[in-house]
Amino acid sequence: MLGRWGANARGVGDDCAVLSVPAGERLCVSTDSSVENVHFRRGWLTPEEIGYRAAAAAMSDLAAMGAAPLGMLLAISVPPAWRGDLEAIADGVGALAAASDAPVLGGDTTAGAELSLTVTVLGSAQRPLMRGGARPGDTVWVTGALGGALAALRAFERGESPAPWARERFSRPVPRVREGRWLRLQGATAAVDVSDGLVADVSHVAAASDVRIVLDLDRVPTLGGMDPRDAARSGEEYELALTARELDGERFAGAFGVPLTAIGEVLDGGEPGVETRFRGDRVDLPPGHDHFSP
Amino acid sequence: MLGRWGANARGVGDDCAVLSVPAGERLCVSTDSSVENVHFRRGWLTPEEIGYRAAAAAMSDLAAMGAAPLGMLLAISVPPAWRGDLEAIADGVGALAAASDAPVLGGDTTAGAELSLTVTVLGSAQRPLMRGGARPGDTVWVTGALGGALAALRAFERGESPAPWARERFSRPVPRVREGRWLRLQGATAAVDVSDGLVADVSHVAAASDVRIVLDLDRVPTLGGMDPRDAARSGEEYELALTARELDGERFAGAFGVPLTAIGEVLDGGEPGVETRFRGDRVDLPPGHDHFSP
Repeated sequence: MLGRWGANARGVGDDCAVLSVPAGERLCVSTDSSVENVHFRRGWLTPEEIGYRAAAAAMSDLAAMGAAPLGMLLAISVPPAWRGDLEAIADGVGALAAASDAPVLGGDTTAGAELSLTVTVLGSAQRPLMRGGARPGDTVWVTGALGGALAALRAFERGESPAPWARERFSRPVPRVREGRWLRLQGATAAVDVSDGLVADVSHVAAASDVRIVLDLDRVPTLGGMDPRDAARSGEEYELALTARELDGERFAGAFGVPLTAIGEVLDGGEPGVETRFRGDRVDLPPGHDHFSP
Repeated sequence: MLGRWGANARGVGDDCAVLSVPAGERLCVSTDSSVENVHFRRGWLTPEEIGYRAAAAAMSDLAAMGAAPLGMLLAISVPPAWRGDLEAIADGVGALAAASDAPVLGGDTTAGAELSLTVTVLGSAQRPLMRGGARPGDTVWVTGALGGALAALRAFERGESPAPWARERFSRPVPRVREGRWLRLQGATAAVDVSDGLVADVSHVAAASDVRIVLDLDRVPTLGGMDPRDAARSGEEYELALTARELDGERFAGAFGVPLTAIGEVLDGGEPGVETRFRGDRVDLPPGHDHFSP
């Protein structure tokens, strides 16, 4: 696949890839699998989109740490029925690598009974943004608008073609890498990427920070007129949810062309966890997204 | 699985694992998949051995760089039929993590149609040992004794139980991590781990170093009286093959309880590649190990 990646591959061919972490910075690393019939079905996505999306899902974890990407590794299992698609899959990974300034540093290609991509991402930051830093008095923010991935998934599962805006959000999610770094430098106290669903992921922040968080679902930006109670459960959105004492949402939107919206507060006292409100009432949402059933 | 790993897991639970690379050292990273029916079959290995072996195979790449392990990540796809074995698999990964002083830093567990483990290893070294450093006048060395993995594979494929010494080499290979660091510090010029087969892997060194290498197969230590022409094609051995101007094999054996044997020379001139000799004659071996056919 090396030939496909060109300038987006580096140093592949030894037992390990060798790279330098900038002096004074800490290494951030995460591994993420995308498996046929678990994370996508053949026919929903093109091979190029499968590669892109698998890499984007992994890269989103670096975004949530406010880390600058150093590179990625791809382990891929390719069944006979997918062998002819390998170059297109590699093109998709390469497109995300180029967009994230994260060269492919190495990998492993094996046979297998199902298509499976495991992407490991490496990045660095002086003080990575963790989940445990939210403090009472902070505001909760979310980037972008939610619900597109769920709208696409619902259409796919009904055997229909999703609306283009929904399909785009499912097939080509944009990891908020530059946004994450900006937010870290602007004083964000905690962050998570929206992979399980907004409420589920903010719950991870509440648990790690040992704080109570109230989310006002009326304020959550949604796509296609989706009910925010649904959008707040939409997984694999790869937007960022974060906490900060103060942030300039307009400056963020101006810099990145993406909205940054205040959607809740970190409160003092009470049981740690997330409380959701909608139209003035407390609502309990069913558990978050757990992929589709194989 | 976190509970199973105890002190052998660290920092799991954020979007990324965060770690420090020692100042002045370069990061070495590699990813390696072990897939059911490609790298092993159910019934050949216990679940604990499957976990151990997958992690050992990845760790062996750090050994070949002479790098000190920093940690590892595990992505695992678990089919329903294997769910009850997950803790035993984790125990095997944990045993290798403990033996290598490489804590499990993070991971991803998903469903899947076949058992698949992708282990990413991270380590560091001031000057990692690459494949491209062999120079004319160097001697070629190999650690340990070869052939056990092939003997076990042949028995498994005949439906027989391998001899214990062969089974042990297949099921619990020992990545030569400490040995690799020692060899790097003692002046090794290039190294590779024996994963595809001795001749195939030394060919990688010859190609990367742009040198001609002559291997004297009569000198290759083998197990169980195996013909060295077979042992030189045995893959997944996870011994190290390396080049160096001078090394003290006896001191190595005393320090690690493993032989270090001179088996060839790096020569000046001629076409880059590996030439094999046996009983005084040049022999051409068939291509190296390529796993068993699924």
